[in-house]
Amino acid sequence: MGQTKGLHIAVVGATGAVGQQMIRTLESRDLAISKITFLSSARSAGSKVQFKDNEYIVQEAKPESFEGVDIALFSAGGSVSKELAPEAVKRGAIVIDNTSAFRMDENIPLVVPEVNEYDLKNHNGIIANPNCSTIQMVVALEPVRQKYGLKKVIVSTYQAVSGAGAAAIQELKEQAQAILNGDSYEPSVLPVKSEPKHYQIAFNAIPQIDKFTENGFTYEEMKMINETKKIMHMPELQVAATCVRLPVETGHSESVYFEINSSGVSSSEIKELLKASPGIVLQDDPENQLYPMPAYSVGKNDVFVGRIRKDIDEDHGFHMWVVSDNLLKGAAWNSVQIAESLVKLGLVKN
Amino acid sequence: MGQTKGLHIAVVGATGAVGQQMIRTLESRDLAISKITFLSSARSAGSKVQFKDNEYIVQEAKPESFEGVDIALFSAGGSVSKELAPEAVKRGAIVIDNTSAFRMDENIPLVVPEVNEYDLKNHNGIIANPNCSTIQMVVALEPVRQKYGLKKVIVSTYQAVSGAGAAAIQELKEQAQAILNGDSYEPSVLPVKSEPKHYQIAFNAIPQIDKFTENGFTYEEMKMINETKKIMHMPELQVAATCVRLPVETGHSESVYFEINSSGVSSSEIKELLKASPGIVLQDDPENQLYPMPAYSVGKNDVFVGRIRKDIDEDHGFHMWVVSDNLLKGAAWNSVQIAESLVKLGLVKN
Repeated sequence: MGQTKGLHIAVVGATGAVGQQMIRTLESRDLAISKITFLSSARSAGSKVQFKDNEYIVQEAKPESFEGVDIALFSAGGSVSKELAPEAVKRGAIVIDNTSAFRMDENIPLVVPEVNEYDLKNHNGIIANPNCSTIQMVVALEPVRQKYGLKKVIVSTYQAVSGAGAAAIQELKEQAQAILNGDSYEPSVLPVKSEPKHYQIAFNAIPQIDKFTENGFTYEEMKMINETKKIMHMPELQVAATCVRLPVETGHSESVYFEINSSGVSSSEIKELLKASPGIVLQDDPENQLYPMPAYSVGKNDVFVGRIRKDIDEDHGFHMWVVSDNLLKGAAWNSVQIAESLVKLGLVKN
Repeated sequence: MGQTKGLHIAVVGATGAVGQQMIRTLESRDLAISKITFLSSARSAGSKVQFKDNEYIVQEAKPESFEGVDIALFSAGGSVSKELAPEAVKRGAIVIDNTSAFRMDENIPLVVPEVNEYDLKNHNGIIANPNCSTIQMVVALEPVRQKYGLKKVIVSTYQAVSGAGAAAIQELKEQAQAILNGDSYEPSVLPVKSEPKHYQIAFNAIPQIDKFTENGFTYEEMKMINETKKIMHMPELQVAATCVRLPVETGHSESVYFEINSSGVSSSEIKELLKASPGIVLQDDPENQLYPMPAYSVGKNDVFVGRIRKDIDEDHGFHMWVVSDNLLKGAAWNSVQIAESLVKLGLVKN
């Protein structure tokens, strides 16, 4: 690649729900790309994908696939990342990994550019992209932390099925149609495909995302707790999460209560602060019924924040409602944004 | 009525979503009924309703309609209650009102039998039935308050459209079908029929239930805050709420964080306590994926509680997930249960 100015990008998991959004995001951005390679598991190899005006055949991802690759965007499941990300790094690529495989590894930066872009400087080849529900929350909390200090966060999520992949989207649609028809439908994907029990998601809410850990929280909830502390470099931050799957195709919503260190701060001050902060679109005008909603956030890279209110009893407490497209800022866009940050900071050798 | 042993019951708003559930609930219970009268607005008068094996013609509710009535169950909107409940009381009836018309009136008891049945003794003819989302929460919190003391509650709700009436149910179904077909559909009911803007509810989440108050909270949220304090007789309780409408037909869910006064309490102790408490069914076995869900709670009178976890950082803090049929315990069943309590306590003269 030395002679050209553009990057050789590889997309691993090109046929998945997130991979498809990565392709669309790469098409829409200015990242100089000289070559692009689409990779997948053996199962999906041979599929065709469109990138700009060309058609590409998806290749099976193998260690040799990464020869000459500058940046590899991984989104093909944790086991693929564990096996192939080190192989890609060995061959000189920087890996931006969208799975949970390396997120809590202390030698691997976990990055949301609006929050901790500076952590990219310490990467050792692999950079982890956080969990979708974590990303949108920390984008909204970071300006608050910087200005007022942050003590405690309690979040309840309203998560879309696309976070569980294309099969979950299909299940929601087919099941909704069956219920509207008065037909029966046997759930087989949600809440967790590999778990023994599956439940109706259409016209329902399932308070389980990922499996349960021993303390009664799910892995999804523990990801939100641990990743938030790591990204914000606040091991002492008190974080609690309840994660719930909804019959929404795309767009995660979050009801977030947070306590700051400063006293006497008004909700208007929080609104002004977030309005001026990167990556955030403030949608907060109750009088005109303006607040974020998932169905109206699809296809947008921003984190939408609204319903900001000061707690009635606790001077340090505030409530807000945070919505974002879980496939974009929650996954594809945050990954591509990391790639753009690497270029901007001169961290990509090519 | 003096000669008979049964009660003359009037159902006001007999044709509505809650009224229909009241009829079904009265059919299934043992309340001795000697006569039943079905009333409604002029608009719905003349409709037919089934009760047990008989068909009844719904009459327009007028002051005279309440002559000889022992208990009148009102669920026809706040303005009907404000006008006719005093007329019913004047004629000797006890009114159990399911609207928000009298809930915060300090001379009117606001009752959830599992929590404050004793307040019925102080009634002056009208008894208010709390808001649906409040009822299920206080049923789950009251045993905790009694045993460990209660300091703070932060709730995020996941509310079904049937709380907004039959038109909202129809809108959800028609809109879901239109979206599945790829057709357009103009929302006209949710979030609030009388508000200028209406939003898609199918495959979406709307963080507005009822109108907004000046402090940025909605009336629904303020109902949860104020009614909880009144029912539990705890003006000092710290309560905050975020209320969200979901594409669920029936069944409200709530993610509840609460802080108790006692130290060193385990989540197992909270589970054991709630398992043995009235009106509650504990569904809390993460290993076997057992937790409450709205679609599986429809048609049941119970409040289902699960996902009970101790907060990781706060020794006094706990999380739980509370689900109930909003038309039953949230409305019809709680009203009929109040009627049963009145009989049990000897408070109905007949």
